[in-house]
Amino acid sequence: MPNNDNGRANIGVVGLAVMGSNLARNLASREGNTVAVYNRTYARTEELVTEHPEAGFLASETIDDFVATLTKPRTAIIMVQAGKGTDAVIEQLAERFEPGDIIVDGGNANFNDTIRRERELRERGLNFVGTGISGGEEGALNGPSIMPGGSAEAWETLGPILKSIAAVAEGEPCVTHVGTDGAGHFVKMVHNGIEYADMQLIAEAYDLLRRVGGLSVEQLVDVFKDWNTGDLESYLIEITAEVLAQKDAETGSPLVDVILDEAGSKGTGVWTVQNALGLGIPVSGIGEAVFARAVSSKPAQRGAMRASVTNRPKPPEVPDTFVDDVRAALYASKVVAYAQGFDLIVAGAKEYGWDIDLGALAKIWRAGCIIRARFLNRIVDAYATEPDLETLLVDPYFADAVASGEEAWRRVVGIAAASGVPAPGFSSALAYFDSLAADRLPAALIQGQRDFFGAHTYKRVDKDGTFHTLWSDDRSEIATTPSTH
Amino acid sequence: MPNNDNGRANIGVVGLAVMGSNLARNLASREGNTVAVYNRTYARTEELVTEHPEAGFLASETIDDFVATLTKPRTAIIMVQAGKGTDAVIEQLAERFEPGDIIVDGGNANFNDTIRRERELRERGLNFVGTGISGGEEGALNGPSIMPGGSAEAWETLGPILKSIAAVAEGEPCVTHVGTDGAGHFVKMVHNGIEYADMQLIAEAYDLLRRVGGLSVEQLVDVFKDWNTGDLESYLIEITAEVLAQKDAETGSPLVDVILDEAGSKGTGVWTVQNALGLGIPVSGIGEAVFARAVSSKPAQRGAMRASVTNRPKPPEVPDTFVDDVRAALYASKVVAYAQGFDLIVAGAKEYGWDIDLGALAKIWRAGCIIRARFLNRIVDAYATEPDLETLLVDPYFADAVASGEEAWRRVVGIAAASGVPAPGFSSALAYFDSLAADRLPAALIQGQRDFFGAHTYKRVDKDGTFHTLWSDDRSEIATTPSTH
Repeated sequence: MPNNDNGRANIGVVGLAVMGSNLARNLASREGNTVAVYNRTYARTEELVTEHPEAGFLASETIDDFVATLTKPRTAIIMVQAGKGTDAVIEQLAERFEPGDIIVDGGNANFNDTIRRERELRERGLNFVGTGISGGEEGALNGPSIMPGGSAEAWETLGPILKSIAAVAEGEPCVTHVGTDGAGHFVKMVHNGIEYADMQLIAEAYDLLRRVGGLSVEQLVDVFKDWNTGDLESYLIEITAEVLAQKDAETGSPLVDVILDEAGSKGTGVWTVQNALGLGIPVSGIGEAVFARAVSSKPAQRGAMRASVTNRPKPPEVPDTFVDDVRAALYASKVVAYAQGFDLIVAGAKEYGWDIDLGALAKIWRAGCIIRARFLNRIVDAYATEPDLETLLVDPYFADAVASGEEAWRRVVGIAAASGVPAPGFSSALAYFDSLAADRLPAALIQGQRDFFGAHTYKRVDKDGTFHTLWSDDRSEIATTPSTH
Repeated sequence: MPNNDNGRANIGVVGLAVMGSNLARNLASREGNTVAVYNRTYARTEELVTEHPEAGFLASETIDDFVATLTKPRTAIIMVQAGKGTDAVIEQLAERFEPGDIIVDGGNANFNDTIRRERELRERGLNFVGTGISGGEEGALNGPSIMPGGSAEAWETLGPILKSIAAVAEGEPCVTHVGTDGAGHFVKMVHNGIEYADMQLIAEAYDLLRRVGGLSVEQLVDVFKDWNTGDLESYLIEITAEVLAQKDAETGSPLVDVILDEAGSKGTGVWTVQNALGLGIPVSGIGEAVFARAVSSKPAQRGAMRASVTNRPKPPEVPDTFVDDVRAALYASKVVAYAQGFDLIVAGAKEYGWDIDLGALAKIWRAGCIIRARFLNRIVDAYATEPDLETLLVDPYFADAVASGEEAWRRVVGIAAASGVPAPGFSSALAYFDSLAADRLPAALIQGQRDFFGAHTYKRVDKDGTFHTLWSDDRSEIATTPSTH
């Protein structure tokens, strides 16, 4: 079935595993698109084309044929597993493409790789666009949230194509030109980091309501369904109810009780926290979520600890308002996680020279992606009102929402501590909130310690400059320039 | 004063800023050492030599002279600021050194750089030893804790020299051959990470006792002095009392009240957490400590939050035992921080092929370094009893110590949450403890969510294999191989 027609497809897809196939089918289903498809193993291509005649795919057996099938500027989306394989596929296309053509990487690439690839291909006259695509297999097929980086020139051609396949929220397609070079993959990374935090917070709410509140799994299904009708309405809350409602066919138990409690991860959560650390942005909510998965995946340590710690605390009495208290704690902690994530995007944009519209970003996360939520409309509003918001936590809407649940949030963290049910996400979010709100932080003591043992110097509250106390001399204070060792 | 004598110094120091000068003086003060010194700016060399005639330094104006002054195998310790400058200095020496000679980097290098440099120099026949040196300026002069990596061959020559200048704990010099290539700089990095956690925990104890417990700074001096006579006895507790006792000459206030409460950092804490994330080791205590410093250093956000969050919680009543409760919380959280740090060392050793003796490492941290503490004797004992301890938390001594303070620890975390005084270190340590001790973690729910939206599959508690529920089909379960996308 090789196809040598020249210039008939306005878009091509390379890599036809589930994500690539679904994206190709999505593209083909939209008015105006003719889709060329190519896969290293031709059998897979044939299978896809046979199963979906309605798509009118132009299938190629060789990369040369594939390239010949594309109209100019040639535009091809690579959907292969992120990593070294991506460079090889990019090179195959780059060798055959001409100046002005567009290579799109739709995998979960590290944005540093995307920055490098964009620079290398730009030097060869080619457009390279790294784009985040969120929504899993379903999203790829029916409408994902799409976060492209790359040049404005590439966006001119690519924008209409991506708009044709994106999810739609309140009439607007969930795609925007995030920024140049690696901006798209950077924000996709942060999206995934926020997803980690969001999932961890939901898991803590579930755990507390079940183990401390004494709710059954069946009751919890109703709780999450109920929460999904209010300001927590979101895809993750919705599917939590679905997962909890699922019964295991073999045992009759709730599926959640037969699933091994060791959470895996794919790396974007780790990247988010590593980059936040490098940029000096405290994303403690994402950090605790990544660490919580890591703790869960240490069966030998957990076994040793269970054998060692046999005397567990008795669950304390909980207030009648406990379900609602936990809801408030979840909501407030979620606001913190998003505030931290958006701070990281601001810092990344500054570091890498991207002009990122935070409101536009919140808009494209309202549908198609894993963290889609009613909540995001509020973030859109917040940045519309104040584009240079210091933190989401001071937006009046969020400030009020957090304040109204603050007492409950504090109660839940206290109950978790007393009961021995871990709530690292709830408690670190509260500590972050209290740190930002504090008149004074004990960081002053830390600066004193650092000056004592390392002559790192300190600043004063009452005048400019840096100072050092001669700790091992007469303990007088001298003005100094910052230590460089 | 150039010195062209050939082969008279058994050790040389390159880079004579405070750390280098002090280390050179320390070396010169020990029987059997003759020390060559070199600095890019000769004026600094002259100054040192003039100020310290007792040292008998052999000063060189040029690098050629410096190299000519060293006996074979030539051994030179580079004490320059970590970074690109280090490579240039290494190259200056490497061009002049002969096979078997030894170049030592005593700066705070990233262990990845050390691994690379060791490999490159080994290929040229030279020994390269990256070594951690902890103890600040005082330690460098009077006896630091020293953590060398590099080859066994280099250790043969270098070992006796380093033993001559190291701090001494219970009759043993605080230096051991940690492992090959970058092992020394890796454990120094983790040492610094633990130092971050330890300082943050002390800061939280101080903050809670002052703001919730109502203790004055003067009373806190006595509390920390008292704590320094018990199982918390350590350098950091000792200097905390010193810093708190210090009065500002200008205002008469405690110095801690005039120091700006924005904590700085030099990067090793960030590296520790970044590497732990990459290795899948949950070092949440270090992570929260690094993030707490980052939060403190965001004056614009803090100002906006203080203006927004005006209604702060009233400090709750605290029990009469509060000072002792906080001590217990500090001790337990500190055990967690060390347990996490040692887990990271185990993981690093496995990843990079180092044979690290954890007991020997705990021994060399007992004196000279910033985290020196009575506590470390207990860690030495723990690994002597059980070299393959799953976690320090299950060593009987530490398990008992934590258990005896557990109720107090839970009370303190609850009080912190209720009072609005941030305790991210205490609360994340408790959540880590409770996560490891839990019979079941809500990670099972997270695996269910991941399978729902990304077909990531899950394992079951009751049989081997990986499974996937056909969520968007008939919701039956299929056995599968792990997802690769």
